[in-house]
Amino acid sequence: MEEIMTTRRKIKSYQDGKVTEIEDIVATEYPLTIRVNGNEFATMVCTPSHLEEMVIGFLASEGIIRIFERDVTSLYLDEDKGFAYIETTAEITPSIHDHTKRFIGSCCGKSRQSFYFQNDVRTAKSSMSKEKITFKQCINLMNALQSSSGTFHETGGVHNAAICTQEGIIVSRTDIGRHNALDKLYGHCLMNKIKVQDKILVFSGRISSEILMKAAKIGVGILLSKSAPTELALQAAEDLNITTAGFIRGNKMNVYTHPERII
Amino acid sequence: MEEIMTTRRKIKSYQDGKVTEIEDIVATEYPLTIRVNGNEFATMVCTPSHLEEMVIGFLASEGIIRIFERDVTSLYLDEDKGFAYIETTAEITPSIHDHTKRFIGSCCGKSRQSFYFQNDVRTAKSSMSKEKITFKQCINLMNALQSSSGTFHETGGVHNAAICTQEGIIVSRTDIGRHNALDKLYGHCLMNKIKVQDKILVFSGRISSEILMKAAKIGVGILLSKSAPTELALQAAEDLNITTAGFIRGNKMNVYTHPERII
Repeated sequence: MEEIMTTRRKIKSYQDGKVTEIEDIVATEYPLTIRVNGNEFATMVCTPSHLEEMVIGFLASEGIIRIFERDVTSLYLDEDKGFAYIETTAEITPSIHDHTKRFIGSCCGKSRQSFYFQNDVRTAKSSMSKEKITFKQCINLMNALQSSSGTFHETGGVHNAAICTQEGIIVSRTDIGRHNALDKLYGHCLMNKIKVQDKILVFSGRISSEILMKAAKIGVGILLSKSAPTELALQAAEDLNITTAGFIRGNKMNVYTHPERII
Repeated sequence: MEEIMTTRRKIKSYQDGKVTEIEDIVATEYPLTIRVNGNEFATMVCTPSHLEEMVIGFLASEGIIRIFERDVTSLYLDEDKGFAYIETTAEITPSIHDHTKRFIGSCCGKSRQSFYFQNDVRTAKSSMSKEKITFKQCINLMNALQSSSGTFHETGGVHNAAICTQEGIIVSRTDIGRHNALDKLYGHCLMNKIKVQDKILVFSGRISSEILMKAAKIGVGILLSKSAPTELALQAAEDLNITTAGFIRGNKMNVYTHPERII
């Protein structure tokens, strides 16, 4: 896997004024354009692994498909040209291209101000998860995520994400794009009918509102991150009943929302 | 500035099994929808500072405007609702909404494979910069960027970028979004007629192909980063005659492309 995810290249390394030419490992970046029922839908720039999963997860996240077997009639990748061709039974109306159109709530209330895209309003649901997790399990899962990424982590430019039980990782995915890593997990769960409501999402990247929405769409109730959250993400997490913890490093962790799931 | 860029919130801090409730500082995240000549163009999720600059830089980067005074007839921000209204003399044809449409070169040649969006082909030009910089100046500029971000850096969730001469920072901007920080700089330069060809762009985030394209559009010839590049970004940097250096930390630096500008 690593050979398609990285490239070797000669670089000049400077240290304390000395220059040496060394061979370095650089993360690959690959543009993939998704065509749905013959129409160009989006171009993703990604790490070229698990592309089918990424496409399925992305389209589910955008509200285009919901159930893999029912909604996807064909999926063909032209990896050389960087195109994915999807046929779906879902009707793609012109309004589907409004997936990133701004959503303005009709009420000027306290809740759901953190929803700013129309498709999020349709697809992100409140978590019904009854799962609990201990502090120690959180630390262990983050350590497991870190070690699962192996030497590839050395390129310094990728994010890791995993769907876990309290005891360990079920599946982990890597991508240079934060969203893509989650889309790959989402696609994997949909294609393999993995029930996610009782699972935990562990992530190396920041919890932005977009990442929080993605977690809600995937359907987990607990989101653990090595990095920082944003305020808008935390407001959405409160609304959507998702437990968020960040800065999980060494033997430390910050819990931001719904701490009742941490025992 | 810091009070609009961060929010204080009570969180639970876990350390070695002990829990304490502390007050933490979390980065703000703000959705801003841009309407151009009455039509919704895009929604950006950003740190709410220097929004006019960000909008102008983004629209220039997307090829909608080129010269601020000539092309922008009005710019109005409704900060409460999160909308920016731009009137431009540029004709917004339906094809303008193809700005993220996939570009497929007519030649299957070696060059410009790193261009995958149609608007990049129109707006990203090869650098004509004759500037040179020393290793020591690179290290100093990265240190200056780090210290300019101040305590706000403590939220852990933001990127810093600066337009510099060899001697120091001219202007620096911060955002939770990597692209936004560069759009703010670009807008600042356009609105203040700062010539960028002889300047250096210093950045805390990774050099993805999108970031490299943004640097090319801004017009700098030297891009310095604290983090890793991707292979596609380096291919584009080679094509566009841009010097890229990464992993600038302590007294170390990697130079990836066009090392002739490092003396």
